[in-house]
Amino acid sequence: MNDTMMRLLDVIGTVVFAISGATLGVRRRMDLFGVIVLACVTATAGGVMRDLLVGTTPPFAIANWKPLTLAACAGLLTFYFEPLVGKLKSPVQVFDAAGLGVFAVAGTQQALDHDLSFGSSVLLGLISAIGGGVVRDIMTAQVPNVLRAEIYAVAALTASVIIAGAHHLQMASTAAVPFAVAACFLLRLVAIRRAWNLPASRHAPKDPPPTSPAP
Amino acid sequence: MNDTMMRLLDVIGTVVFAISGATLGVRRRMDLFGVIVLACVTATAGGVMRDLLVGTTPPFAIANWKPLTLAACAGLLTFYFEPLVGKLKSPVQVFDAAGLGVFAVAGTQQALDHDLSFGSSVLLGLISAIGGGVVRDIMTAQVPNVLRAEIYAVAALTASVIIAGAHHLQMASTAAVPFAVAACFLLRLVAIRRAWNLPASRHAPKDPPPTSPAP
Amino acid sequence: MNDTMMRLLDVIGTVVFAISGATLGVRRRMDLFGVIVLACVTATAGGVMRDLLVGTTPPFAIANWKPLTLAACAGLLTFYFEPLVGKLKSPVQVFDAAGLGVFAVAGTQQALDHDLSFGSSVLLGLISAIGGGVVRDIMTAQVPNVLRAEIYAVAALTASVIIAGAHHLQMASTAAVPFAVAACFLLRLVAIRRAWNLPASRHAPKDPPPTSPAP
Repeated sequence: MNDTMMRLLDVIGTVVFAISGATLGVRRRMDLFGVIVLACVTATAGGVMRDLLVGTTPPFAIANWKPLTLAACAGLLTFYFEPLVGKLKSPVQVFDAAGLGVFAVAGTQQALDHDLSFGSSVLLGLISAIGGGVVRDIMTAQVPNVLRAEIYAVAALTASVIIAGAHHLQMASTAAVPFAVAACFLLRLVAIRRAWNLPASRHAPKDPPPTSPAP
Repeated sequence: MNDTMMRLLDVIGTVVFAISGATLGVRRRMDLFGVIVLACVTATAGGVMRDLLVGTTPPFAIANWKPLTLAACAGLLTFYFEPLVGKLKSPVQVFDAAGLGVFAVAGTQQALDHDLSFGSSVLLGLISAIGGGVVRDIMTAQVPNVLRAEIYAVAALTASVIIAGAHHLQMASTAAVPFAVAACFLLRLVAIRRAWNLPASRHAPKDPPPTSPAP
Repeated sequence: MNDTMMRLLDVIGTVVFAISGATLGVRRRMDLFGVIVLACVTATAGGVMRDLLVGTTPPFAIANWKPLTLAACAGLLTFYFEPLVGKLKSPVQVFDAAGLGVFAVAGTQQALDHDLSFGSSVLLGLISAIGGGVVRDIMTAQVPNVLRAEIYAVAALTASVIIAGAHHLQMASTAAVPFAVAACFLLRLVAIRRAWNLPASRHAPKDPPPTSPAP
């Protein structure tokens, strides 16, 4: 993929994940710096995990000042203008869905650029995509989205598989990238709106589980 | 240790930890993919931590498709046939105890094969053994087993010390491995059955602590 | 900085973070080994993260037996003599504040010694400082201190910026180090005593958030 598109994807993913973290922080009544820290962690944790797993040290988000500055600014703006975000129906989940698609694509592409196999590339795309949200949810003491209903890992996997498949079929990534991002985002959003869920096991206990309330 | 035994240990550890994660997921009413993700994370997190700590990147579970495929299949079967697992008294803990012993042995052995010291090898064995369960428990928002009663870290340490000791005494690992796995597994199981606990501090508060219910 | 001072800082930081972890463990009625594990994790997690992020494997706390032995001994003593610690008003937070300053300084200094940039050094100092406490809080199923009120990340950042600034101004670190540690410690303690907080967003919900009780 050309560099401009990769950079653009990273910027978009960083901003939307930062907003999802900051919005959750505001709703949990965190103070300004708590909100900014949560925005930064949500925006960068997936990429840091990916870099550590492929042996790139220091990770991009540590070596380069731009991602954290961008995430901190997005967090700051969210702190002061949260009502604009709040007009969306479930803003944490909408921004999370956007970040999911973008980072799945960026992570898979980066792994392919390092000549990793199809499977490893898909996996690294998945980890890049879900890492930030997992750390955000763990740090706010709730069960990560990826383990709770609503086609979460499946949406990220879809985007990763499209990118890795297009690469192996030698298709132009300029066509595959927007398609993969859109597929993940829409799949996840429709799942939220229609409360599509994969089934729970027939053997699950009948009483409701001890989960945290959704943000 | 010969390669066949190492591979067998890894397969057994992966499967039992995957079952422990999947069973917990079913009981928390997670959907199919949540259960599979939790099975995969529980089965591989300890090994990934061990690989990152010794500088092996990408970690084995990322570079190789077998561990995650195995864990996903074990998770899938658990999802559909959980009652078979449920006939055991406390299945998460029984499978967790088996994984604990197997991964303590495999992690220690791998560190010894990299010429690490006695202490570092024992430590890496411990981390391989407890890592998966810790991540599983954190992702389901409960305090990790290793911090709650019942001779958990001690059992894993016992297995690691037996393997590292046998190595330094130049004993055959074919004899030490089954002994170490059995010692860890039995020590942990007996501790669960008899509710053996190490003492809490005399200075602990009298009222019960805010812990999550055991799975 | 000269080696003696670096080593002294590491010893102090390890001991105070171990005490903070062990005290929290005692209050949550953990058993002896749970308390020791929590002491070790709290004392070493920040340094292990820092080492992984700059690519030093195995991390110092794994390769060297001293940090974990020190942390385990501090945890053991805390387990048996917790009332001495308890005479302090909020002992977990006081020891946590001391560790915060010491590890911010040590982490920043180590990054500077590796010729990292000003920004990356400050960031690694921050991660070294908050890492142990974050893992301690996550493992006890509470929202990390760094996300809850009271000038937490700001205090660690202050120490890191003082050290990195003094380095770039080529000032003697023997003068900067005690000043930076003291600035962080006092800033954090005063914030606790006076309940200084940064503001929550005007847009935060009015009802109290679902946080765990402070230790």
